[in-house]
Amino acid sequence: MISVGIVGATGYTGLELIRLLSLHPEVDLTVVTSNSETGKPVADVFPNLRSHCSLKFAPHEAPELAQCQLVFFATPHATAMRQVPGLLKSGCKVIDLSADFRLKDAQSWQQWYGVEHAAPALLETAVYGLPELNRETIKTASLIANPGCYPTAISLALLPLVQNGSINLADIIADAKSGVSGAGRKAAIAGLHAEVAESFKAYSVSGHRHLPEIVQTLTQAAGQNVALTFIPHLVPMNRGILATVYAHPSDSGTNWQQLFETYYQQEPFVEVLPAGAHPATRDVRGTNQCQIAVHTGIADSQRLVVLATIDNLVKGAAGQAIQNMNLMFDFDETLGLTVPGLAP
Amino acid sequence: MISVGIVGATGYTGLELIRLLSLHPEVDLTVVTSNSETGKPVADVFPNLRSHCSLKFAPHEAPELAQCQLVFFATPHATAMRQVPGLLKSGCKVIDLSADFRLKDAQSWQQWYGVEHAAPALLETAVYGLPELNRETIKTASLIANPGCYPTAISLALLPLVQNGSINLADIIADAKSGVSGAGRKAAIAGLHAEVAESFKAYSVSGHRHLPEIVQTLTQAAGQNVALTFIPHLVPMNRGILATVYAHPSDSGTNWQQLFETYYQQEPFVEVLPAGAHPATRDVRGTNQCQIAVHTGIADSQRLVVLATIDNLVKGAAGQAIQNMNLMFDFDETLGLTVPGLAP
Amino acid sequence: MISVGIVGATGYTGLELIRLLSLHPEVDLTVVTSNSETGKPVADVFPNLRSHCSLKFAPHEAPELAQCQLVFFATPHATAMRQVPGLLKSGCKVIDLSADFRLKDAQSWQQWYGVEHAAPALLETAVYGLPELNRETIKTASLIANPGCYPTAISLALLPLVQNGSINLADIIADAKSGVSGAGRKAAIAGLHAEVAESFKAYSVSGHRHLPEIVQTLTQAAGQNVALTFIPHLVPMNRGILATVYAHPSDSGTNWQQLFETYYQQEPFVEVLPAGAHPATRDVRGTNQCQIAVHTGIADSQRLVVLATIDNLVKGAAGQAIQNMNLMFDFDETLGLTVPGLAP
Amino acid sequence: MISVGIVGATGYTGLELIRLLSLHPEVDLTVVTSNSETGKPVADVFPNLRSHCSLKFAPHEAPELAQCQLVFFATPHATAMRQVPGLLKSGCKVIDLSADFRLKDAQSWQQWYGVEHAAPALLETAVYGLPELNRETIKTASLIANPGCYPTAISLALLPLVQNGSINLADIIADAKSGVSGAGRKAAIAGLHAEVAESFKAYSVSGHRHLPEIVQTLTQAAGQNVALTFIPHLVPMNRGILATVYAHPSDSGTNWQQLFETYYQQEPFVEVLPAGAHPATRDVRGTNQCQIAVHTGIADSQRLVVLATIDNLVKGAAGQAIQNMNLMFDFDETLGLTVPGLAP
Repeated sequence: MISVGIVGATGYTGLELIRLLSLHPEVDLTVVTSNSETGKPVADVFPNLRSHCSLKFAPHEAPELAQCQLVFFATPHATAMRQVPGLLKSGCKVIDLSADFRLKDAQSWQQWYGVEHAAPALLETAVYGLPELNRETIKTASLIANPGCYPTAISLALLPLVQNGSINLADIIADAKSGVSGAGRKAAIAGLHAEVAESFKAYSVSGHRHLPEIVQTLTQAAGQNVALTFIPHLVPMNRGILATVYAHPSDSGTNWQQLFETYYQQEPFVEVLPAGAHPATRDVRGTNQCQIAVHTGIADSQRLVVLATIDNLVKGAAGQAIQNMNLMFDFDETLGLTVPGLAP
Repeated sequence: MISVGIVGATGYTGLELIRLLSLHPEVDLTVVTSNSETGKPVADVFPNLRSHCSLKFAPHEAPELAQCQLVFFATPHATAMRQVPGLLKSGCKVIDLSADFRLKDAQSWQQWYGVEHAAPALLETAVYGLPELNRETIKTASLIANPGCYPTAISLALLPLVQNGSINLADIIADAKSGVSGAGRKAAIAGLHAEVAESFKAYSVSGHRHLPEIVQTLTQAAGQNVALTFIPHLVPMNRGILATVYAHPSDSGTNWQQLFETYYQQEPFVEVLPAGAHPATRDVRGTNQCQIAVHTGIADSQRLVVLATIDNLVKGAAGQAIQNMNLMFDFDETLGLTVPGLAP
Repeated sequence: MISVGIVGATGYTGLELIRLLSLHPEVDLTVVTSNSETGKPVADVFPNLRSHCSLKFAPHEAPELAQCQLVFFATPHATAMRQVPGLLKSGCKVIDLSADFRLKDAQSWQQWYGVEHAAPALLETAVYGLPELNRETIKTASLIANPGCYPTAISLALLPLVQNGSINLADIIADAKSGVSGAGRKAAIAGLHAEVAESFKAYSVSGHRHLPEIVQTLTQAAGQNVALTFIPHLVPMNRGILATVYAHPSDSGTNWQQLFETYYQQEPFVEVLPAGAHPATRDVRGTNQCQIAVHTGIADSQRLVVLATIDNLVKGAAGQAIQNMNLMFDFDETLGLTVPGLAP
Repeated sequence: MISVGIVGATGYTGLELIRLLSLHPEVDLTVVTSNSETGKPVADVFPNLRSHCSLKFAPHEAPELAQCQLVFFATPHATAMRQVPGLLKSGCKVIDLSADFRLKDAQSWQQWYGVEHAAPALLETAVYGLPELNRETIKTASLIANPGCYPTAISLALLPLVQNGSINLADIIADAKSGVSGAGRKAAIAGLHAEVAESFKAYSVSGHRHLPEIVQTLTQAAGQNVALTFIPHLVPMNRGILATVYAHPSDSGTNWQQLFETYYQQEPFVEVLPAGAHPATRDVRGTNQCQIAVHTGIADSQRLVVLATIDNLVKGAAGQAIQNMNLMFDFDETLGLTVPGLAP
């Protein structure tokens, strides 16, 4: 049993963390913070948690955080980087679900996020929390940079290919589609039901903040430069990401289906579907699974297409964070994360 | 550990039963049947169950059913009534999620369902599986008639009132709204996304099959006749029911909030919200909870209004069936049913 | 051809006004205002209007408004009441789509809207713009209080009954359901897709601002006091209202279907459906129609149930305003308002 | 005024044809057919048309069709090809909204549609009804093959590029997303709200029937072979297509924005948005518009990305058919097609 805190628990990621942690037998959630709802019972803000969480929101700077063995940050970017150094010094471990420690290069971070980084030294120390890539280093880390939602789906779709080296690394396209909870729980006209429902569009086509994170991951895995065209789209639904990834095979002899099945054979949260399958986001709703389907022999095309689905709030955020926690504290990696997808 | 079978497992209720039973530590699901998908792996039809169920669909008349300690029926009406008598004779217990054993009066059943009842003698034996009303008899029953979705929400909203006797029993209105999964997983134009989404309507206004079931329950609870106007509506969403119930107080001295809180104090799956709350179906999505709010002092009105939400597939079907199973087999009543609602 | 202005044209009602006026052959839209988007082309904010409107947003106090023959207000409440008196003096006619001039009683207005009324004298002068009730006075009015969306649907469902006198006026229930555009185009967490979609709830149960407006209308029509229980609900869709109205017949001899058909025989925008029909909001989407179905002989019930659907942004706002404009300027009442509903 | 008939008017395309034709001042709709609803009033099946269409459905082989000047086919494939030859002989003009006459090559048609073509001689005669490509031949055609929905969006996104010759024709990707009405109004589990809503997936990845049609169009325009990877996706919404098209510029000197603006300068139904825009399907809902945005200078990418939106039932079906009709009968090309998009 470990004592755990959450900073920034009134967003969708924070809500999902509380929800999932309430199912975890080894976690004692002792403090959750919110500057906007300080003093309010969690159950008043999130009635789905009435029978599961009796805490009240504390302020972000609550001193109880320093007593926790683990603190999750579910804050907007540029918050964790100011508060994390102190907590690490107090002996807490930290899993940051924001973007603050995901990029190794402080200059690139500043360029994409528009703020100077407040703790650049920690960028090197932080471990990028994609267990399928960095499982062993995660186990001993004190600071985890939990991956973004798009980077999780796209990286899992591409890791076997870039490590195998049998695709053209200079020409990869990721056409990705996300539900609207990815935009967060903040008052904004663009997120209104009447703006989003019954509509579909691309956004941030010129460059999305998740791009450098994905490229960094793929480059690490490939051991050489990777060039990616990444176009995100907004789907009129609450949860779920589908990434449609297009690659040029540079090698005609590979059995792609077998490559993926072998690569992910031991992974508890990656399911390689039968060849030709069409994964649907609903099948992973509420779960930490990533479902992947590999398509070759597409009519009129020489492309290899990989489809990958995740729940952006679970494998793309809170669930992956708990998977990382399980690794860091030597729990069974799947503890608390084994529910089937909620369909329909 | 008990061995369990499901007859009719390709509908939404059957799917939800498999999903929830996969979380139950005392259940060994040994046979699931489907006449349309016989021989197919469950995971091929429902990819959300890939890592949770390795069974293949057997035909409805699979002999293995008779080896089960408990068989759930998740079939359309007029199926269970033919197959249940044999299973009971084999020593199985049965929970029927269809309407076949819900009405005590065979003639009324025939009138509403348009078929002669094939096992009228069992109508008396069967126990109506609403634990909040019949907990003790459920424990020793061999055949449970699992309540309908609307009847569950509306009965829970009204039980404290009709038993307390302080409302006018001759004039109750239940204006109920349901998500579309209540209509089942069958090929029909009326259920298409393009027919349902971005639209709202009432249906079966002249008389819905759940009416006699609700009236029977309320009459039993009140010990006298109850007259109910029940109008169902279709909401463009997948899961959830909200019942808005209007009653005439016949007694001005009652503290209604306290009446409900006291009545449901011991109930694990009924949450009485603070006075003035507005329960939302999303807060009970995927859960076995019923959330209830009592409203008095409504502007310009002498009515008492009770709002009740459930997930039609869980507390309104599969979850309640498992709650009944827990009671019948002396498991903790909440076993396998304690996840928080999936919001958003 | 008349010159027309719109104050507050960046909300959904304003947007709908521009959309519908662009189809009107006798309207020259000369000025549209917005304090938040002043100076921006309309087409940049609303790309659906690119080929239909080349105006830029002016500030609310734009002097050009005084040159218009007609000014629509599509502002939040407590705005029009300050600006309208000046425009009337300049000789403009005004149709106010906000709530500022809907109630005849300044004290009641202040009680429901929480602000002192700035132009109480105009409350008497203003004509309530429900053409089915006040057609003749609308024709000569200089200031129209355009009805609210719920009041339009509920009043049209009840007018034949309260004028006919054959129902119990002391016990009427309107259980009403609205799409989310009724909440307006403003940054608020409660309106986010992730809060609204796949959920259903009641709101403002203790008292909604449209209540006194409906009661005022019904009382005027009945010539005596009417008591109404009005409960609004939020439907996860963008457009549409369904009102389910419950009444006690006090007279058993009335042919209700015929009563409605006769009452609305001449009305271009009220369609009485065949007995037993279930109007769906999608069938009036984008139109100025109200579809009504009358239900009697409901199982187990002595109630008369009337179902009425409108598009809250059209017959419930912008369309009705244009219908009023047509009457005021002696155009054909249906001019610019004859498109069929957009289904699916 | 021309007399017009519709064969197969109970699908979504047929419904949309009736809806749009009811707005057209030069059309007298005299016969609509349906084998499933023969004898029923149109308004009973489609209540949104109550005040707009008083016809009853005739059978498909109704002799009145031969009296029409123009007959639309809105039938599933393999129906029109049997009935059209007779109507042409009777002197009717025909616009076929199904796939029967879209491919020039009978063998390819047979391969993709699985049936032998019944009127292969007409494949040469038929004019592919994309006005932006074939306007002049459409004017004098007697048989129009109305384009598919995906082919319309994708072709309009690519025509300026393939004709200009400045992209690599051997490597084009169209990642396209469609609302569910594209699947038609037929009873099928896959189209249920509970299967589609809150989910997203790709489908027909191995090869979709619209592929040969798009390739044929692009090849005609380019004057040389074009290779296309085309992946369709299903969006949980009713109407709308967004095509995200990826091309390799082979020429670094082109001003792409200007290329598109010039190419479509005279087109009434193609709107080239400002550089960097993100077209949303809702802005073209209910309209015959195609909105296009061109993106260059995408971070980390050498790709040119073109985004194109249409309403699949309008510019992708019924609206484009009416545009073709206007050309064939020398009406103003935009007649009856000038409503703004219904947003929200």
